[in-house]
Amino acid sequence: MQSEVNRREFIRNSAIAGIGMAVLPSALSATGMKTKVRLGLIAVGRRGQVHVAELLNRTDVEIVAMADPDTQMMAKTRALISAAGKKLPAEYAKGNDDYRNLLKRDDVDAVLISSPWELHFEHCVESMRAGKPVGLEVGGGLTLQECRDYVQAYEQTRVPVMILENACYRRDLMAITNMVRKGLFGELLHLQGGYQHDMRARKFNNGTVPDTPGIEFGPGTPSTPGWRTQHSVNRNGDLYPTHSLGPLAVMLDINRGNRITALSSVATKSRGLHRYIMNNIPAGQKHRNADVQFKLGDIVTTTLQTANGETIVLTHDTSSPRPYNLGFRVQGTAGLWQESGGGEFADGLLYLEGASPAKKWESPSPHLQANDHSLWKVFGRQAESAGHGGMDFFILHAFIECIKQGKDFPLDVYDLATWHAITPLSETSIAQGGQLQLVPDFTNGAWQRRKPVFGLNSEY
Amino acid sequence: MQSEVNRREFIRNSAIAGIGMAVLPSALSATGMKTKVRLGLIAVGRRGQVHVAELLNRTDVEIVAMADPDTQMMAKTRALISAAGKKLPAEYAKGNDDYRNLLKRDDVDAVLISSPWELHFEHCVESMRAGKPVGLEVGGGLTLQECRDYVQAYEQTRVPVMILENACYRRDLMAITNMVRKGLFGELLHLQGGYQHDMRARKFNNGTVPDTPGIEFGPGTPSTPGWRTQHSVNRNGDLYPTHSLGPLAVMLDINRGNRITALSSVATKSRGLHRYIMNNIPAGQKHRNADVQFKLGDIVTTTLQTANGETIVLTHDTSSPRPYNLGFRVQGTAGLWQESGGGEFADGLLYLEGASPAKKWESPSPHLQANDHSLWKVFGRQAESAGHGGMDFFILHAFIECIKQGKDFPLDVYDLATWHAITPLSETSIAQGGQLQLVPDFTNGAWQRRKPVFGLNSEY
Repeated sequence: MQSEVNRREFIRNSAIAGIGMAVLPSALSATGMKTKVRLGLIAVGRRGQVHVAELLNRTDVEIVAMADPDTQMMAKTRALISAAGKKLPAEYAKGNDDYRNLLKRDDVDAVLISSPWELHFEHCVESMRAGKPVGLEVGGGLTLQECRDYVQAYEQTRVPVMILENACYRRDLMAITNMVRKGLFGELLHLQGGYQHDMRARKFNNGTVPDTPGIEFGPGTPSTPGWRTQHSVNRNGDLYPTHSLGPLAVMLDINRGNRITALSSVATKSRGLHRYIMNNIPAGQKHRNADVQFKLGDIVTTTLQTANGETIVLTHDTSSPRPYNLGFRVQGTAGLWQESGGGEFADGLLYLEGASPAKKWESPSPHLQANDHSLWKVFGRQAESAGHGGMDFFILHAFIECIKQGKDFPLDVYDLATWHAITPLSETSIAQGGQLQLVPDFTNGAWQRRKPVFGLNSEY
Repeated sequence: MQSEVNRREFIRNSAIAGIGMAVLPSALSATGMKTKVRLGLIAVGRRGQVHVAELLNRTDVEIVAMADPDTQMMAKTRALISAAGKKLPAEYAKGNDDYRNLLKRDDVDAVLISSPWELHFEHCVESMRAGKPVGLEVGGGLTLQECRDYVQAYEQTRVPVMILENACYRRDLMAITNMVRKGLFGELLHLQGGYQHDMRARKFNNGTVPDTPGIEFGPGTPSTPGWRTQHSVNRNGDLYPTHSLGPLAVMLDINRGNRITALSSVATKSRGLHRYIMNNIPAGQKHRNADVQFKLGDIVTTTLQTANGETIVLTHDTSSPRPYNLGFRVQGTAGLWQESGGGEFADGLLYLEGASPAKKWESPSPHLQANDHSLWKVFGRQAESAGHGGMDFFILHAFIECIKQGKDFPLDVYDLATWHAITPLSETSIAQGGQLQLVPDFTNGAWQRRKPVFGLNSEY
């Protein structure tokens, strides 16, 4: 991880002269129409391979190169591509910096980054500096300065980045977004969401083989436990805010007529990960991980305020036994939706004044059916085979289509900066006992004139 | 409403010497066993009459006196008592101060106060000064000083007060409390609750007749809209925290091994009450209430932290169309319960690690049945006819039984002060843009040695 100062230096030194950049179009609109996108992949681990599987279904994408220092993961990805009968990409596996050689290739139109959180910033900004539009996997930011530097890198290079928040395309959430836009909930007031996902079995493995039961983590451990778990040791905050915040930010027109102004966070005591280790140490044995002190509170609650007077409550709940559920609630002056399932239309409860029986909950299902988004009507069948219930199809589809058509990404660097900022700000708030933190306006006032763009057509 | 200074003066002037009071028992334990409690009622409006109806079922209570300046409400109560064939109580209806004459009666063992929120403090402390143990209806505090003064009045007089939070006795919540105490949720981490009750039709009437449709409120308007609605004009905070906080405080042993240390609150914009007025003005007419600016945000979210490392999120949501639901969530290291109904065992979702099918929600019903509280087993049938699904039976039963048996109330002045303090502190937090507020320790350290007392037996 680079230090703050180095990171800023890096941006300053490699900056293209940025005068008047704020009114220039992004690099995409200058590229003209393409029929095929030649992609470079940075990191092809667990998440990267899900993207590869999806990309292999597409006739408008060619994977020309991939970079990952993990040769096991590289071999798995190669096998995936080979099995699909596609041309094998060039490989960059010589250590952590070999991705820079991938970025030098003229035949890479854009890059898809699925690396560990702590590498997102470097990989993303280096790609932008190399003139490669970026699709960046989600995560929380590491520092507030990093969030500012993403924006600066974009404003200096005009090379766009799309934050690949697939939950924005969840079918029920897109139908709810439709309903919000039609005014069926009246004026929005209060929204909730959370990353409520028991990640305990994903934060540990047996130390040598991915996706095995175990209590090992840390450097040298393969796959997710090799990097992700250390964040739970070092940090206390909402480490993964975007699956819940992303769709809610779309509904609230954040950075496009609205903005997040302030937050505060609190955390419970930390019990779940230690308890998991203790419960899984073989009887009679000792284990060094029994002594690890996890800093991450089991449940982190973050309360956001917006310029337009709405409030949002986000929950981060990844260390406790529970069914998966993102806990969405969307409430306006005319009704509300709240869910407790995994994205099915029938999950949860809905109430619309006038339409619902007086003061009785209804199943959301008929309302969501009636407001199904046109993207899902057009691409639903195609999406069904994709990862995460179809969401992965749509997020990659939007990324690829925008590059092909020379259109601005529907989720951009300002969304990335704002959503990422929740994490370091929540850490600061918790470290200060729950003190209020102001959320910077990364658009520098442009939120007042920027218009909503997400999900406005049936193409992407 | 008295000013702060006057209130403090009042307490100082009427104080009994308080040296060493902290170790003295409360007045109740000195009274010995009674077979009958002679009650004085202060305020017999909408809520007071529900209590009267319940008290008339009891053979161990005699209503000897009642005070209310509202002669309409007094007449209704008289009719209720008369219809039950009970002896009519003495009446004190000569203005707002006539209740003081009720307090002078030697034949009043205790008083039950069901007055408007803004009179709770005066009515309660005057009763304590007169040596009458108090059952005080719920509400939020008006000022933080008032909360301190309740405690001071108790510590000086040793006359106890019970906060009549009926939700503590809701059948599902008592079963959950049992489950918490048995450790079925593991160590508690995060709790949620809220007053989520569309009160719009209760905040207005036609200006002359209680419980009629209309858009009138304020002085001169009968019943609840005559006093309660003005709080929504003047104040922005969680005005009514105890229905949700009370049961959660019991589960968390607040003031009995734990305490609330800090809170912060945010509010949405205020839309619902104005919208309700506008939607109900007869077509083509104008109405002065169209110009009223309501200060109360439609949805107020308050986040609490405890000394033992749990967090609580409270919601106040009374101005929007929605089904009634207190939105409880009780989560520990071994599982969670969350509900979205009105208190039925089958409402909501439950997950217990090990007991539930892996990562699948269950109906709470079998678990709540298996952990039904012994009080409900003994008195459930008797309670069923009482108000609010039986809760009103239990809260009055506990109040009366403690007086009869000379036992400490299970909810006391420290609970009253702590729960009431949430309201003024949330107002201050919101006024400061969401800034953190420290919650005073009203027990002055005694929370560390005080033991849980609520619901520990099957008598009360």
